[in-house]
Amino acid sequence: MNDYSPTPADKFSFGLWTVGFQGADPFGAATRPELDPVRAVHKLAERGAWGVTFHDDDLIPFGASESERENAVSRFRAALDETGMTVPMVTTNLFGHPVFKDGALTANDRDIRRFALRKVLRNVELAAELGAETFVAWGGREGAESEAALDACSAFERYKEGIDLVCEFIRERGYDLRLALEPKPNEPRGDILLPTVGHVLAFIERLQHPEMVGVNPEVGHEQMAGLNYVHGIAQALWSDKLFHLDLNGQHGAKFDQDLRFGAGDLKNAFFTVDLLESAGYSGPRHFDFKPSRTEDEEGVWESAAGCMRNYLILKDRAAAFRADPRVREVLEASRVTELRRPTISSGEKAADLLTAQEDFDPEEAGKRAMHYELLDQLALEHLMGLG
Amino acid sequence: MNDYSPTPADKFSFGLWTVGFQGADPFGAATRPELDPVRAVHKLAERGAWGVTFHDDDLIPFGASESERENAVSRFRAALDETGMTVPMVTTNLFGHPVFKDGALTANDRDIRRFALRKVLRNVELAAELGAETFVAWGGREGAESEAALDACSAFERYKEGIDLVCEFIRERGYDLRLALEPKPNEPRGDILLPTVGHVLAFIERLQHPEMVGVNPEVGHEQMAGLNYVHGIAQALWSDKLFHLDLNGQHGAKFDQDLRFGAGDLKNAFFTVDLLESAGYSGPRHFDFKPSRTEDEEGVWESAAGCMRNYLILKDRAAAFRADPRVREVLEASRVTELRRPTISSGEKAADLLTAQEDFDPEEAGKRAMHYELLDQLALEHLMGLG
Amino acid sequence: MNDYSPTPADKFSFGLWTVGFQGADPFGAATRPELDPVRAVHKLAERGAWGVTFHDDDLIPFGASESERENAVSRFRAALDETGMTVPMVTTNLFGHPVFKDGALTANDRDIRRFALRKVLRNVELAAELGAETFVAWGGREGAESEAALDACSAFERYKEGIDLVCEFIRERGYDLRLALEPKPNEPRGDILLPTVGHVLAFIERLQHPEMVGVNPEVGHEQMAGLNYVHGIAQALWSDKLFHLDLNGQHGAKFDQDLRFGAGDLKNAFFTVDLLESAGYSGPRHFDFKPSRTEDEEGVWESAAGCMRNYLILKDRAAAFRADPRVREVLEASRVTELRRPTISSGEKAADLLTAQEDFDPEEAGKRAMHYELLDQLALEHLMGLG
Amino acid sequence: MNDYSPTPADKFSFGLWTVGFQGADPFGAATRPELDPVRAVHKLAERGAWGVTFHDDDLIPFGASESERENAVSRFRAALDETGMTVPMVTTNLFGHPVFKDGALTANDRDIRRFALRKVLRNVELAAELGAETFVAWGGREGAESEAALDACSAFERYKEGIDLVCEFIRERGYDLRLALEPKPNEPRGDILLPTVGHVLAFIERLQHPEMVGVNPEVGHEQMAGLNYVHGIAQALWSDKLFHLDLNGQHGAKFDQDLRFGAGDLKNAFFTVDLLESAGYSGPRHFDFKPSRTEDEEGVWESAAGCMRNYLILKDRAAAFRADPRVREVLEASRVTELRRPTISSGEKAADLLTAQEDFDPEEAGKRAMHYELLDQLALEHLMGLG
Repeated sequence: MNDYSPTPADKFSFGLWTVGFQGADPFGAATRPELDPVRAVHKLAERGAWGVTFHDDDLIPFGASESERENAVSRFRAALDETGMTVPMVTTNLFGHPVFKDGALTANDRDIRRFALRKVLRNVELAAELGAETFVAWGGREGAESEAALDACSAFERYKEGIDLVCEFIRERGYDLRLALEPKPNEPRGDILLPTVGHVLAFIERLQHPEMVGVNPEVGHEQMAGLNYVHGIAQALWSDKLFHLDLNGQHGAKFDQDLRFGAGDLKNAFFTVDLLESAGYSGPRHFDFKPSRTEDEEGVWESAAGCMRNYLILKDRAAAFRADPRVREVLEASRVTELRRPTISSGEKAADLLTAQEDFDPEEAGKRAMHYELLDQLALEHLMGLG
Repeated sequence: MNDYSPTPADKFSFGLWTVGFQGADPFGAATRPELDPVRAVHKLAERGAWGVTFHDDDLIPFGASESERENAVSRFRAALDETGMTVPMVTTNLFGHPVFKDGALTANDRDIRRFALRKVLRNVELAAELGAETFVAWGGREGAESEAALDACSAFERYKEGIDLVCEFIRERGYDLRLALEPKPNEPRGDILLPTVGHVLAFIERLQHPEMVGVNPEVGHEQMAGLNYVHGIAQALWSDKLFHLDLNGQHGAKFDQDLRFGAGDLKNAFFTVDLLESAGYSGPRHFDFKPSRTEDEEGVWESAAGCMRNYLILKDRAAAFRADPRVREVLEASRVTELRRPTISSGEKAADLLTAQEDFDPEEAGKRAMHYELLDQLALEHLMGLG
Repeated sequence: MNDYSPTPADKFSFGLWTVGFQGADPFGAATRPELDPVRAVHKLAERGAWGVTFHDDDLIPFGASESERENAVSRFRAALDETGMTVPMVTTNLFGHPVFKDGALTANDRDIRRFALRKVLRNVELAAELGAETFVAWGGREGAESEAALDACSAFERYKEGIDLVCEFIRERGYDLRLALEPKPNEPRGDILLPTVGHVLAFIERLQHPEMVGVNPEVGHEQMAGLNYVHGIAQALWSDKLFHLDLNGQHGAKFDQDLRFGAGDLKNAFFTVDLLESAGYSGPRHFDFKPSRTEDEEGVWESAAGCMRNYLILKDRAAAFRADPRVREVLEASRVTELRRPTISSGEKAADLLTAQEDFDPEEAGKRAMHYELLDQLALEHLMGLG
Repeated sequence: MNDYSPTPADKFSFGLWTVGFQGADPFGAATRPELDPVRAVHKLAERGAWGVTFHDDDLIPFGASESERENAVSRFRAALDETGMTVPMVTTNLFGHPVFKDGALTANDRDIRRFALRKVLRNVELAAELGAETFVAWGGREGAESEAALDACSAFERYKEGIDLVCEFIRERGYDLRLALEPKPNEPRGDILLPTVGHVLAFIERLQHPEMVGVNPEVGHEQMAGLNYVHGIAQALWSDKLFHLDLNGQHGAKFDQDLRFGAGDLKNAFFTVDLLESAGYSGPRHFDFKPSRTEDEEGVWESAAGCMRNYLILKDRAAAFRADPRVREVLEASRVTELRRPTISSGEKAADLLTAQEDFDPEEAGKRAMHYELLDQLALEHLMGLG
């Protein structure tokens, strides 16, 4: 019997900012004390996690001296060595300090853009030093509350300039590091540039080195725009751009809830795991959520454990769903598998199709039963453990 | 004094389905009789419109015989000739008939996909015959209610296959026609593939002839996902992909309202016109809305006139906003114009930036006043005619 | 072992308009033929349903003659008698015909308001004749697209006038019938009056006979406004006003999806059943959804069966959750049960509380662990069948 | 010519927390220093405001000693005296301190509920002392992230118990003070109890002294649920319960933006002012917004000025709209004014109506033109200064 206990082979990772979240929100103060990154590494390892991720400022306070920096990194490294934990991903905090109140790579002030880029480059060095494979860039402050305040076309140009520079830097240094841009529709800005998976994928194609850059989709960010996360990562996978992802939970179009994975839209979480596992996604399963501020530190570890446990339960359920002969039969009857077959025959041209005399009656075809209600019901029942 | 009367030079266009909308909705029957396309052309011309657009089925009923088809087209052509109206865009109805209940280019049934493609090709011929420059494809049924019912990765593959075939056909025939794909997040499907401007722009880059394909963003479709339309078309413009657009109104995340342009988010409409006019967009200003079913035919023409009038009023107001010396002063003070300046100096490398000793104090920079509240207020006042 | 087969004791009911939904939507035509109400009654009975509900027009076409009416009712009655099915609820179609395009009880045209009221009164007679206990009123057209078109304060006055008249009629006739008003935020109108459970509950208190009127909350209608359905029905229960309810599924702020119960927000459905069962709600479990237009008639019955099955599964899971000793322990630790205890001691006055010298340290109290992450995880696991 | 300069006669008020907002958000630190309440009073008075409002903690830091309290109040009083500013409303901070992380009046911990109530009572004394007429209660933490964590029916009971106690206290003390409850759908809690105007109005009717309690609707809070603010305050006015209101701006279903009044949905703001002015609302026009964190203190005053200026511009435009003979003509043609006429004739009974032989043809009535597109266009043009 499966007890759904995680192991490093599951590639579960957590951010320092996640388990270290102190609980401040727009209407209330912190409810938990600071958490030492070293303690976080040990606790996560004990719980069965594989990796730990961070923003530069999570590890090294903004404005720290060189020696403070070295000390912080070396204590952290020691914890990694002791526990065997990896650092699969590193990211840069370009949103917390007031200097970034108008954005970072697209701030109207050029000297702020330059400062932001230096902060990124410095952090790329650290990421490489710690062996990270992915460098995430979330442009949470690249946006505006008023269209008057942002020359959006210039902003895309500056955004590209910044990302191109980072790619150039990685290539010059010979780092084995890929970028993953993280979309979000809004919050903290009224509107954020690159609001969805689609906008990021499109932006990447305008870069100098598109092959170095992918997307880091977060469940809640897509769902804040009412979008289907499964379809979003499917488009990313189809584009070979799912470099990393952030798993959590959200209840639709409202503030960014950052619930633990499984809370929120459970059926979508089921199909998310189903797709990741069936598509052979081999990257980290990164949980980016905020343990509720009603909890103490023990509650933080409970919620982290819940994320991993839910993933494993859903993985088990999705596998059972796919293996169920009745499901396979209905998938056939629904012609879901027929979508893999090309529409056009080998060698066929548009002109051939246009003149093809096919025995096709649209009225009859319009009456065909698709069996989707049954198929969805079977999925729901597998999710609920009836299979 | 400006009386805001439209002329063909304004390039305003309307769909036959828009002015011919009979008022049926999910809970009620049609409230207006059918409108003869010929009458629509004349009425629109009288009101100052420049172009008329249509779905194949708007002009030629689904399943019509060849002679019915010829008759419909020839009556329509005569009306165009009489009035001087143009057909800047044609599109295909791949959603109305039950045969498309599970999609068209991505239907699970291969024979339905083939039927859909034949319908498109046939319609491309008509578009070319009528001199249209843009061929819009809205995949309103390409989607799902249950993730189980759609193998999304295969769906993207089939979608690409279909669009590639249409492009090949246009090239073979030597037509001077570009495609514009229209995103929408949902409705009529629970989730639609290519839900936003971003997803379409990204998809285009995976096509065989990306240069032939652009995006057709609709105000309400982006706003249904809570996205900023101005930022969406800015990314499309920045990507050289704004081939066409649909102007209308919407009140946020709810059903597709298709209000006349100006109703809905008025300030966003102001900045939409501001961007289109200042970026030199030269395509049609196409209004795709649904005149309220509370109106009779006269109300249809009133609402069409309202769309055009609102565009012209907003164009006037945006021009005054941009010309106002006080606005220019605040734009300078806000450093909005500084965003045009590259972040990196000519010849500068990432390594140079990293080691540059710049006299920059983030604490001081974090205190800078951006003056965005004032800037936005000035925009609002210009919009309200106080300038 | 539970096989989750419904029986009449479960009090499951369905609308004729639900199982008879032909699949037309704003962008497509019907995909299924009409369904004879008599057939619907038999099919529902076979599947284990207990009751059938309808709008007047579902049974008797708008404008039918007296003899057509009698014939329709008598055939329907015979089917009820044969099957033992009940008619727990009847409602009036005040939205489908063009005459109601501007509303019914609050239409600007007085003669239309009078016509609507006559239609309601006529239908009250039929409801009483068929032994219905609840008469639902959904004011789907009482609303507006423009604030200019609706004098909202007068609309509330007219709304009250209409409902008061219906209550007076029921009292005069001595019918044993209660009204239940159904809220919805929008669709088909841009905004609908009485948009949520709260607005209905408040409106009821301004009526002449508030005791005769309750609320009929629909899962999807509350969720279209991003509201928590469980909290909504809790307020209705607390107010003794949960007279009826409509169970279905929805994915947040978008068009009214009317998915089968269980699809949509599954965890909320779990807690909905948990609350209904634990609060001793004894009314009908009415499923008001739209079987997907991708299905044929067999799919309609599958989806109806799915609704009932999901309710029974969730009922089972909720009971196990409440019975689990570990859950009880965490509920205690979380002080969830302490909320039942009055805040004020017996006989205590405000002045006493103000001057009470209590040993309370807000700093310490702010650190208490609430264990909600664990509690929610336990709920999720019970929902997924791990108990 | 109107220069839209506010005077105390306009009854504009602002919260200390509004002008004192330092700019912290979930992703970033404060960008402005603390603002002395005394300075706030003077600055607001200079700008033409009439009143200032506050949470207890805005004036007297949480946990302050008695002497600190007295000192703070006396400095504040002196500023009021010097400037002639009033304190029309006072409210209690029951959300900022960690002790309230699980709610205040409905916290699961009874001692926290008691502490919260003492804090409220203490603040009622201060409100009365400063001559406030309205005491606002926003239960921003009364809610939950998981349905498991909240026994909602008990929560309503405790909520009622708390509000009843406050009313009792006011009555015993003989204060001339009314309560106004403020709804909000979510944020900071995943779901907040009493999420909309309707839920508050309904809750009030279950209180011991409903006549003492009204609603305090905030523009953005209703719009976060996609609801029409104008309709919400219309129902409050119709129920004689619009005791106070919070004017600001929001862009639909997303995080609580708290934009200045006029930003956000401008047309809805126009009709809000139109309704307040035409319905004879005589309470404060209270602006509850957050000046953007991109601004320095000068920007704060600019944004406060913008709120007042926008109200006055819209008031002017709404008056012109109502006075325009063309508008009156279209209102008549649309039968908007006919809604004031009772549906039922004097003395008429339901039975009379049922049997009345009226010459009414629903088919013809369904074809009537409502002229709402024109009416809305006229409103839009008046809003834009074309009258």
